[in-house]
Amino acid sequence: MTNMKRIAVLTSGGDAPGMNACIRAIVLTAEHFNVSVIGFRHGYYGLLNSEHVEISTDMVSNIIQNGGTILHSARCPEFKTEKAALKAANSLDALGIDALLVIGGDGSFHGAHHLQQYWHKPVIGLPGTIDNDIYGTDATIGYFTAIETALDAIDKIRDTADAFERVFLIEVMGRHAGFIGLSASISSGADQVLLPEINNDNEAAFKNLVARIETTREKKGQCSYIVVVAENLWPGGVTALAEKINSELSIESRPVVLGHIQRGGSPSPQDRILATKLGAYAVECALQGKSGIMVGEQNQQLVEVSLPHTWQNQKPLDPYLVKIQTEFFDILE
Amino acid sequence: MTNMKRIAVLTSGGDAPGMNACIRAIVLTAEHFNVSVIGFRHGYYGLLNSEHVEISTDMVSNIIQNGGTILHSARCPEFKTEKAALKAANSLDALGIDALLVIGGDGSFHGAHHLQQYWHKPVIGLPGTIDNDIYGTDATIGYFTAIETALDAIDKIRDTADAFERVFLIEVMGRHAGFIGLSASISSGADQVLLPEINNDNEAAFKNLVARIETTREKKGQCSYIVVVAENLWPGGVTALAEKINSELSIESRPVVLGHIQRGGSPSPQDRILATKLGAYAVECALQGKSGIMVGEQNQQLVEVSLPHTWQNQKPLDPYLVKIQTEFFDILE
Amino acid sequence: MTNMKRIAVLTSGGDAPGMNACIRAIVLTAEHFNVSVIGFRHGYYGLLNSEHVEISTDMVSNIIQNGGTILHSARCPEFKTEKAALKAANSLDALGIDALLVIGGDGSFHGAHHLQQYWHKPVIGLPGTIDNDIYGTDATIGYFTAIETALDAIDKIRDTADAFERVFLIEVMGRHAGFIGLSASISSGADQVLLPEINNDNEAAFKNLVARIETTREKKGQCSYIVVVAENLWPGGVTALAEKINSELSIESRPVVLGHIQRGGSPSPQDRILATKLGAYAVECALQGKSGIMVGEQNQQLVEVSLPHTWQNQKPLDPYLVKIQTEFFDILE
Amino acid sequence: MTNMKRIAVLTSGGDAPGMNACIRAIVLTAEHFNVSVIGFRHGYYGLLNSEHVEISTDMVSNIIQNGGTILHSARCPEFKTEKAALKAANSLDALGIDALLVIGGDGSFHGAHHLQQYWHKPVIGLPGTIDNDIYGTDATIGYFTAIETALDAIDKIRDTADAFERVFLIEVMGRHAGFIGLSASISSGADQVLLPEINNDNEAAFKNLVARIETTREKKGQCSYIVVVAENLWPGGVTALAEKINSELSIESRPVVLGHIQRGGSPSPQDRILATKLGAYAVECALQGKSGIMVGEQNQQLVEVSLPHTWQNQKPLDPYLVKIQTEFFDILE
Repeated sequence: MTNMKRIAVLTSGGDAPGMNACIRAIVLTAEHFNVSVIGFRHGYYGLLNSEHVEISTDMVSNIIQNGGTILHSARCPEFKTEKAALKAANSLDALGIDALLVIGGDGSFHGAHHLQQYWHKPVIGLPGTIDNDIYGTDATIGYFTAIETALDAIDKIRDTADAFERVFLIEVMGRHAGFIGLSASISSGADQVLLPEINNDNEAAFKNLVARIETTREKKGQCSYIVVVAENLWPGGVTALAEKINSELSIESRPVVLGHIQRGGSPSPQDRILATKLGAYAVECALQGKSGIMVGEQNQQLVEVSLPHTWQNQKPLDPYLVKIQTEFFDILE
Repeated sequence: MTNMKRIAVLTSGGDAPGMNACIRAIVLTAEHFNVSVIGFRHGYYGLLNSEHVEISTDMVSNIIQNGGTILHSARCPEFKTEKAALKAANSLDALGIDALLVIGGDGSFHGAHHLQQYWHKPVIGLPGTIDNDIYGTDATIGYFTAIETALDAIDKIRDTADAFERVFLIEVMGRHAGFIGLSASISSGADQVLLPEINNDNEAAFKNLVARIETTREKKGQCSYIVVVAENLWPGGVTALAEKINSELSIESRPVVLGHIQRGGSPSPQDRILATKLGAYAVECALQGKSGIMVGEQNQQLVEVSLPHTWQNQKPLDPYLVKIQTEFFDILE
Repeated sequence: MTNMKRIAVLTSGGDAPGMNACIRAIVLTAEHFNVSVIGFRHGYYGLLNSEHVEISTDMVSNIIQNGGTILHSARCPEFKTEKAALKAANSLDALGIDALLVIGGDGSFHGAHHLQQYWHKPVIGLPGTIDNDIYGTDATIGYFTAIETALDAIDKIRDTADAFERVFLIEVMGRHAGFIGLSASISSGADQVLLPEINNDNEAAFKNLVARIETTREKKGQCSYIVVVAENLWPGGVTALAEKINSELSIESRPVVLGHIQRGGSPSPQDRILATKLGAYAVECALQGKSGIMVGEQNQQLVEVSLPHTWQNQKPLDPYLVKIQTEFFDILE
Repeated sequence: MTNMKRIAVLTSGGDAPGMNACIRAIVLTAEHFNVSVIGFRHGYYGLLNSEHVEISTDMVSNIIQNGGTILHSARCPEFKTEKAALKAANSLDALGIDALLVIGGDGSFHGAHHLQQYWHKPVIGLPGTIDNDIYGTDATIGYFTAIETALDAIDKIRDTADAFERVFLIEVMGRHAGFIGLSASISSGADQVLLPEINNDNEAAFKNLVARIETTREKKGQCSYIVVVAENLWPGGVTALAEKINSELSIESRPVVLGHIQRGGSPSPQDRILATKLGAYAVECALQGKSGIMVGEQNQQLVEVSLPHTWQNQKPLDPYLVKIQTEFFDILE
């Protein structure tokens, strides 16, 4: 295809299960095209500080199943400056890098776009975040595993919720998007879900929550009631929400914040497959000289999306899942 | 929508994780529309022999996470006759059933189509099989969990394969399709895969297998080598294939037949979500008087597919995954 | 053995994985001796309010793998009174109960002991609590699964801790005992553990924590550092501890409270086996007219321990595990 | 303690989950005593062929959770000769090794004992095998994980067995001992188990099997029936046994051979804890100059057992578990 000899890869922002599978796919595909791969450690921070390593096929031979990222990740606010981008461009040129692949989320893509103004070789983003809040790809690497981890936790909590017939408020990740929350709620059979896309009025949401719990208990008697709540929705999170319920009502509720377990774990098959496809395809795109794009998958087709499009548009929740949760399965409807 | 009062559901053919989640969604959605649900036990056999039960919402309140099917399943070859279909039609009418939902695979859909010639109310199929070999839906209920179970097993086998640097031949299910095999292979990072869609010449496949193992060991030294093999591909299965390798070559190999563990287990989130969507949508379709269709999902859209189309067409493997496995990651290429 | 015809069982206090396996063993063993089993729902509350059900072998045929308890549990502070105990005794006599088996922890055993002053038939305790804080048995039903759940969560957190080279403070359950904490710490390879049996001076513990983190980072450079913290040890829990670290030092740390996931989940093999043995043995003891005891297992032998002994003595942590964690594997030693 | 400067470790025979946790504990404990650790790769084969590597603490910092063994394993029949033992002794001396730790099973301990006749420094065995067939220690490293893997598989198979109300014959590992079989059977609630310690007459076992299935179905109607069968018990394994049932009777049965998945997987907490204790204790014993022993754990106490004792005695099954399975829970009793 081209005369490329050496490409680089880094993982940036919140780590996500499947990043290692993606690095592996990049290295194996590059080897197929006789291209070597340099990895920067600690995301853009490592790019600025020349923390790099050549990634051999041996190094990736047994990592597809591991969470985290062998390249480590970091946040790097200082990368936003012109000075940083120029330094990065010089560093890439000094190492003879022909293309840069960035695995990360929203912030990482802003960084990639910024760099591209100062470095005129292919820069390609790969969507790696558990939050799935990237427009232009049906799913992001890590999203499927995060759902699975959240579901596994909720399945466990349901056991004890059922034994004690208690109300549980379970906070899941998602940054400002409700993807994990909706999927975890539907797949766990939760009684209710509070999501940023649906619940923009907290007072109304609270009234509704109470009404549903009361109606459920009128109909079924004492029973468990599980509410999935997206992070960053209720001020103070589920701990504060549980306190409000416990103090204002005669209903006792328990908060559980799932937290960072959702970022780790062995990637699920869907994440490994997506990571492998996007990794291979990103190498192909780089070799074809494409730049300023994110590679993604839409409707089972590999696609290229302009980097700014990935953050200028908002990916909607599945409307039918919303309908099921808030209409078909809602005791008040 | 309509004046329907009572619908029926049965699970038929090989059971698949997510069937219970699907039954639950049918019952909860039906309740939303004030429709009651009758379940036939043991598939078409129960329809013929009037084994039925009214499924209350209580009965489905804690089953979304369970493998198997609360309605049990069975194979029922005698259902192919006109006599059986007429008996079933009478039975349905006697019970005042307004629509029949059939969760199953290829054979179950033939049965549904057959029945529809003799019973003139809505008959709707829902794709439930781990094999994913149904045309008209991107995935079938149970497929995602089967991949996960296969992957989990292969991840374990890789530990011991690596410790002993051994060749392992791992047989996965799929009936006559390579979906589980390809997904399990890509997601486990297997060294090679043998699939019915790719390998139609066993002798050539064998030579190729040997060549790759030998080349791999020339390049890397003694090391593990994992081959995923679809069932029904090699006569005698992986046990026979391992014997052939062990007797004809100086390479020792071990066969593992994953078998029925692939049919069970708590359904993965993707299977629960798909099952829930299709269950809800099937009820909506029934209430609208639609019949002779399978409900499915294509490119994130719910669709209706004529029953005969589901078996008259063949769903292809993802060509990019095939390319990755047989070209990009292939040591001989 | 005796003329017993009917025994009763209840689950009380915090639920624990394996309670269902224990109920199953009680019912199957009782059936072997032609004794029927009544279950009280909601612990002592159900005993007082006559919420009971005959438990058939059918009802327990597929529950060994389920967390929670089919009899539900509850706390019942009013059971401490003489009036309550007399009411319970009358209720048991009215139902023709020949013996009562109580599956629960410390509080439940106090209740059993109290009842026994007023009801003169066999009352037998079975240790069911994730906390393992019952003297007289090497392990309690639910303890092994709780370790497993905690470990699984810590394994996931290590992925993201390692990716970002962060300090994580992980709070595990255990009431006032360090069993879960010590086992989770050793099995996860955590860098440090804070337990009530070891750390009775919080200020000293804090200084030591900081010193170890700093020493570790001097020796190894930036790296992850995982601390397991027992609940009820640090005022405000790990959230407060993390805030103190973050505000007083230049080290950033993240708190994770594992919470109620530790109570649920399918019981591990060890819990199912222990629950099965103790359930069978409790029935044997009841039939022999033994009373006022807890059945337990010590050094692979089934034992009977006077109920008051179970709370009057303190079970120590494994001293060699403490030595490993705080001496052999401690970077400051 | 001593002037030891350098010890060596190897893993030999069938690999078992927890071997890496054990290597880690050896290295961390040795470091505490300022002793360096050499690892031989591929068991005794590597000792003979000088495949060795110094194991740093860095190399073991993230392996506690991994199945397999970073040192790889192998079988080495030629180690039985005097010539081999002398060569190994010379090799150990040439490397300045002060003690050798061998993690493995029966065959590995024979090798250690053999070597000790020719090399007069401490040789210590650590019991690492999933089969638990080593006398002198209550459990072996890997045993708990193997039970868990077997149980997880049987839980899945029960789903499909129950859906189709089928008879399943599930073959588990154990070499010539029934430990995995009995634990898997009790914890899965299997209907029956065939073990070498109990069933020494195959014809009688077959008749009994048939009688129980028939009696069960008379009492309960068509239902699933799960039999756990130890490997090496029935000639031709469960495949042959299923064929015999299918051909001689009107009962259809399905065989499942769990196979090598039982050797892999992330070690369970109990295996990691045992591996850590024995690893630490073995280093202590070596530094004290002890030799010719296996370190083990009996009744929660660390013990030292003469190597020949480990194979000259037979460890019995838990008699109460046998009683439960074959008497209390047996439908014919």
